[in-house]
Amino acid sequence: MADKKFSGVIPPVVVPLKQDRSLDVASFEKSVNRMIEAGVDGLFILGSSSEVVFSTDERRREVISNMVRIVDGRVPVLAGIIDTETERMIEHGKAAEQLGVDALVATCPFYALQGIDEIEWSFRCLHDALDLPLFAYDIPVCVHNKLDWKMLLRLGEDGVLTGVKDSSGDDISFRFLCIANEEAGHPLTLLTGHEVVVDGAYLGGADGSVPGLANVEPYGYVRMWKAAQEGDWATVKAEQDRLARIMHITDVTKGVKGFGAGVGAFKTALMLMGIFETNQMPRPVHSLKGENVDAIRKVLVDTGLLEG
Amino acid sequence: MADKKFSGVIPPVVVPLKQDRSLDVASFEKSVNRMIEAGVDGLFILGSSSEVVFSTDERRREVISNMVRIVDGRVPVLAGIIDTETERMIEHGKAAEQLGVDALVATCPFYALQGIDEIEWSFRCLHDALDLPLFAYDIPVCVHNKLDWKMLLRLGEDGVLTGVKDSSGDDISFRFLCIANEEAGHPLTLLTGHEVVVDGAYLGGADGSVPGLANVEPYGYVRMWKAAQEGDWATVKAEQDRLARIMHITDVTKGVKGFGAGVGAFKTALMLMGIFETNQMPRPVHSLKGENVDAIRKVLVDTGLLEG
Amino acid sequence: MADKKFSGVIPPVVVPLKQDRSLDVASFEKSVNRMIEAGVDGLFILGSSSEVVFSTDERRREVISNMVRIVDGRVPVLAGIIDTETERMIEHGKAAEQLGVDALVATCPFYALQGIDEIEWSFRCLHDALDLPLFAYDIPVCVHNKLDWKMLLRLGEDGVLTGVKDSSGDDISFRFLCIANEEAGHPLTLLTGHEVVVDGAYLGGADGSVPGLANVEPYGYVRMWKAAQEGDWATVKAEQDRLARIMHITDVTKGVKGFGAGVGAFKTALMLMGIFETNQMPRPVHSLKGENVDAIRKVLVDTGLLEG
Amino acid sequence: MADKKFSGVIPPVVVPLKQDRSLDVASFEKSVNRMIEAGVDGLFILGSSSEVVFSTDERRREVISNMVRIVDGRVPVLAGIIDTETERMIEHGKAAEQLGVDALVATCPFYALQGIDEIEWSFRCLHDALDLPLFAYDIPVCVHNKLDWKMLLRLGEDGVLTGVKDSSGDDISFRFLCIANEEAGHPLTLLTGHEVVVDGAYLGGADGSVPGLANVEPYGYVRMWKAAQEGDWATVKAEQDRLARIMHITDVTKGVKGFGAGVGAFKTALMLMGIFETNQMPRPVHSLKGENVDAIRKVLVDTGLLEG
Repeated sequence: MADKKFSGVIPPVVVPLKQDRSLDVASFEKSVNRMIEAGVDGLFILGSSSEVVFSTDERRREVISNMVRIVDGRVPVLAGIIDTETERMIEHGKAAEQLGVDALVATCPFYALQGIDEIEWSFRCLHDALDLPLFAYDIPVCVHNKLDWKMLLRLGEDGVLTGVKDSSGDDISFRFLCIANEEAGHPLTLLTGHEVVVDGAYLGGADGSVPGLANVEPYGYVRMWKAAQEGDWATVKAEQDRLARIMHITDVTKGVKGFGAGVGAFKTALMLMGIFETNQMPRPVHSLKGENVDAIRKVLVDTGLLEG
Repeated sequence: MADKKFSGVIPPVVVPLKQDRSLDVASFEKSVNRMIEAGVDGLFILGSSSEVVFSTDERRREVISNMVRIVDGRVPVLAGIIDTETERMIEHGKAAEQLGVDALVATCPFYALQGIDEIEWSFRCLHDALDLPLFAYDIPVCVHNKLDWKMLLRLGEDGVLTGVKDSSGDDISFRFLCIANEEAGHPLTLLTGHEVVVDGAYLGGADGSVPGLANVEPYGYVRMWKAAQEGDWATVKAEQDRLARIMHITDVTKGVKGFGAGVGAFKTALMLMGIFETNQMPRPVHSLKGENVDAIRKVLVDTGLLEG
Repeated sequence: MADKKFSGVIPPVVVPLKQDRSLDVASFEKSVNRMIEAGVDGLFILGSSSEVVFSTDERRREVISNMVRIVDGRVPVLAGIIDTETERMIEHGKAAEQLGVDALVATCPFYALQGIDEIEWSFRCLHDALDLPLFAYDIPVCVHNKLDWKMLLRLGEDGVLTGVKDSSGDDISFRFLCIANEEAGHPLTLLTGHEVVVDGAYLGGADGSVPGLANVEPYGYVRMWKAAQEGDWATVKAEQDRLARIMHITDVTKGVKGFGAGVGAFKTALMLMGIFETNQMPRPVHSLKGENVDAIRKVLVDTGLLEG
Repeated sequence: MADKKFSGVIPPVVVPLKQDRSLDVASFEKSVNRMIEAGVDGLFILGSSSEVVFSTDERRREVISNMVRIVDGRVPVLAGIIDTETERMIEHGKAAEQLGVDALVATCPFYALQGIDEIEWSFRCLHDALDLPLFAYDIPVCVHNKLDWKMLLRLGEDGVLTGVKDSSGDDISFRFLCIANEEAGHPLTLLTGHEVVVDGAYLGGADGSVPGLANVEPYGYVRMWKAAQEGDWATVKAEQDRLARIMHITDVTKGVKGFGAGVGAFKTALMLMGIFETNQMPRPVHSLKGENVDAIRKVLVDTGLLEG
C-alpha cells in the first residue's frame, strides 16, 4: 500500500538567494515556516523549482541541511537527487540520506539518449543502492523522455518505487496509472505537479499534489486538498480557479521563458509579498526586472495577494 | 454568448468502410442512429476520427451528404474542413455549407511552417469567406502548432470563432481559456477531445466533449455529461473511470501506432459489437488483425461491452 | 540504373502572383525561361517552393499546364503531387500525368500519425496507380517523418522509386544512401535540396540538386554542377560559398519565419531584380515589406546581383 | 586568429571499462597510444563519447589524470566540462585545469529551459572564471538547443570562445559559420563532429574533425585530413566512403539505440580488434551481446579491419 505519509500538498520549495547568490537562510526559514503553518503535508526540496541543476554539490548539501533543520520533523522532507545518470544520482542519494531527509526523488537519466530498458534499470539501481523510499519524477520537458505508466506500475508493484511525481502534462497517461494503481492495491503514491489542473487530478484519483505556486499561495492548495477529501468538488473547483488566476504571474512577463519565467515569477512574487529579500536567480538566468515585476505585482493585486 | 446548440456530447464520427474501401452506408446509418438514440447532443463529421485527410473530395461529399440525410435534423452536425491551407479549407467549407451542415471545424494551416500571425489571419479568412459558425480544432499532434489560448479568446470576442475543440493535451492552456472565456461573457463554446479525462475538463468548465470512444460507448458519455450538469461529481468520475478502462482497446495492440491504433481499435470494437461490417481502414493503413483483434475483444468482454 | 534525364540542377520553381493572388503568367514565363537559358537540367513544379499546399486543385492544374506550355520539352518537368494521404496523392498524380509532365514527386503521408510500414505501402500504392517515374520527397520539417534510407533503397531496387529529393537535413543518412545506391547499381537518382551545402553533397555522390535559390541565381548552380562533373572542387566550393552568401536573403529579415521567410525572400529578390512583378504571397502568408525588403536588397547589392 | 594547435583530427576518446566498471587503464593506454601513433592532432576527453555524463566527479578526475599522463604532451588534450549549469561547469573546469589539460569544451546549459541570452551569458561566465581556451560544443540532440551561429561568431570575436565542436547535424548553419568566420579573420577553430560527412565539412572550410569512429579507425581520418590539406578531393571522398562503410557498426544492431548503439558499437569493435579487454558500458546501459556483436564483427571483416 502507498505510504500515506507522502500524500496531500507537498510544495516543491523555491530557494531564496541573496544578491551575491549565496543562500538567503533567513528568507528560506520564513518561507518554509509559512508553508508548514499553512498546513502543507510535506516539502519537496531540490526539484526543478529548487534550482537543483544549477546547484553545486556543496549548495545541494547546504540547502538540504538547512531544510532538515528548519522543518525539524514537522512534515516529511523529500529530496531530489537529480543528475544526468545513475552513478551520479546514487552519490546525491547517499549524501541526502546522511543529511536526514525522508524520501528521495529521481528522474530518468538525461543528456545521453536511452530507451525504456535503461530507464527501468536505472530506477532499480537507485533502489538497490539507496535505503529511503524512492519517487519517480516524470518531467519530459526537462529530460525528454516520458515515463511509461506500465513501467511505473511494475516498479511500484516490485517495491522499487514508493510513488510518482507527475509533471508530464500527459493527463491521459496519469489517469490510466491512477486506475491501474488502484486495481493493483495502490502500491504507488501518485502526486500531480500540474498546479493549474490539480482539481481534475484529485477527481481522477491523485493522492496529492506538488504545486510550485504553493510557495506563493499555500493556503488555497491546502483548502483545495481538504475539500477534495470531503468530496466538496464545487469548492475544489473554485479554489483551483482562483489559484489559476494567480498562476498568470508566470505568463504576464515578456522576453523571458522557461525556468526564468516560472521560478523567476515565484521569486518575484515572494519578494513583493515580503517573504523573500530578493528575486535573485542562479547564473546564467537573469532575475525579473522593471515592467516584468510590475506585471507580476498587478496580478498579485488583482487576485488579492497584495494591496493595491 | 456561446451557442448552447453545440454543447454536450458531440462524438467525432468513425466512418465504416466495406472491404473494397467504399463507404458502408448501412453500417454508417446503424452507428449514427445508435449514438443519437443514446442521447448525444451533436455529431462531428470529417474530423481526424472520420479519416478526413484520407478522403478524396468526392468521398468527403459522400460522407457529409449521407450524414445530413441520416441525422435529418435530430442533432446539429459539425463538419471538418481540414486541409493544408486557407484557400483549400474555404473550398471545403463552401461544399459543406451547400450540403446542409450546421457548423464548420478547422485546424490551423499545416505542412508549411508558419507563425501565430498567419494562423490568426487564416481563421479570419475562413470566417470572412464562409457563413456557418466556425470552430477551431486544436490538435498539435497532427498540425504541429499549439493554438495560443489568448488568440482563441480574441477570435471568440471578435465573433470569428464560435467555439474550440481542444485535442491539444495541454490542460493548463485549456483551463486558462475556460476561466478567461467565462470572464469575457462566455463567447466560445469549449469542447474537450480528451476522452479519458473528460471529468476533469467538465469540472474545470468545459461546455462539452468530443470523445472518439463515444462511437463505441455513447451511453457512458451521455450519463457523464448529465451527471456533470447536476454537479454529481462522484458519478462523473465513476463513469469516466469505466470509460477509461474501455479506452485500453487503443493500447493493448502491438506493432501499430497513431491513427491505425486509435481509429483502428474503434473500428474493430464496432465490428466485434456488430455495428460495423468490417474494420477496414483507408490506404495506407492496415486494419487490425489476429492477436490484435483478440486483445481488443478481451477488453470489451472485461468491461462488459461484449459477452465472454 | 538511375535515369540520367533527372540529374543535374533542377530548381523547385517559385510561382509569381499578381496583387490579387491570381497567377502572374508573364512573370512565370520570364522566370522559367531565364532558368532554362541559364542551363538548368530540369524543373520541379508544385513542390514546397511552388506553394503547392496553398493551391486549390484548380490552381495546381493552372500552374502545371502553364509550366508544360512554357517549357515545351526543353527540359524535363517534375511535378509534386503533395497531399495528406495516398488516395488524394493518386488523384493529383493522374491529373499531372494528363497535363504532360515527365515525373511525379511525393512525400510520405502527413497529418495522421503513421509508421514506416504505412509509409512504404503508400509509395507502392502510388507506383501501382500511376504511370510516370516517381520520386520520393524527404522533407521531415514539413511532414514530421524522416524517410528511412534502407526503405528508399529497397523501393529503388524494386522499381517503385526512380529517385529521391532529399531535403531532410540529415546528411549522414543521405551519404549512407549514396554509398549503398552505388553498390546496388545506382537504381535511384539522388538529388539534394540543401542549397547551401550542395558542394558536399556532390562530393559525396549526389546526382544533382534541387535548390530553391536557383530561382534567384541559376547561373552559379549550373557552373557548380559543371565543375563538379569535371572534378574541379575548388571551383565547386567557391561557387557554393558565393551562393551561400546570397542565401542570407532568407535570414536578414525580422519577424517572419518558415515559408514566409524563405519563399518570401526568393519572391522579393526576384521582384527587386525585375523578374517578378510583385512579391505577393498566398493567404495566410504576408508578403515581405519595408525594412525586410531593404535588408534583402542590401544582400543582393553586396553579392553583386543588384547595382547599389 | 584561430589557434592552429587545435586543428586537424581530434578524436573524442572512448573510455574502456573492466567488467566491474572500473577504469581499464591498460586498454586506455593502448588505445590512446594507437591513435597518437596513427597521427591524430589532438584528443578530446570527457565528451559524450567518453561517457562524461555517466561519470562521477572522481571518475572524471581519474580519466583526465590518466589521459594527461599517457599523452605526455605529444598532442593537445581538450577536456569536456559538461554538466547541467554554469556553476557546475566552472567547478569541472577548475578541476580539469589543475590536472593539466590544454583546452576546455562546454555545451550550453541543459535540463532547465533557457533562451539564447542565458546561453550566451553562460559561455561568458565560463570564460571569466576559467583560464584555458574554451570550445563550445554544439550538440542539440543531447541538450535540446541549437547554438546560434551568429552568437558563436560574436563570442569568437570577443575572445570568449577559441573554437566550436559542431555535432549539430545542421550543416547549413555550420557553413554559414565557416564563411562568416573566414570573413572575420578566422577567430574560431571550427571542428565538425560528423564522422560520416567530414569530407563535405573540409570542402566547406572546417579546420578539423572530432570523429568518434577514429577510435576504431584513426588511420583513415588522418589520411583524409592530409589529403584535404593538399586539395586532393578524390582521395578525401574515397577515404570518407570507406569510413562511412565502417560506421555501419552503429546501425547493424537491433534493440538498442542512442548512446548504447553508438559508443556501444565503438567499444565492441575495439574489443573485437584486441584493443579493449571488454565492451562494458556504464550503468544503466547494457553492453552489446550475441547477435549484435556478430553483426559488428561482420562489418569489421567486410571492411578489412578484422580477418574473416
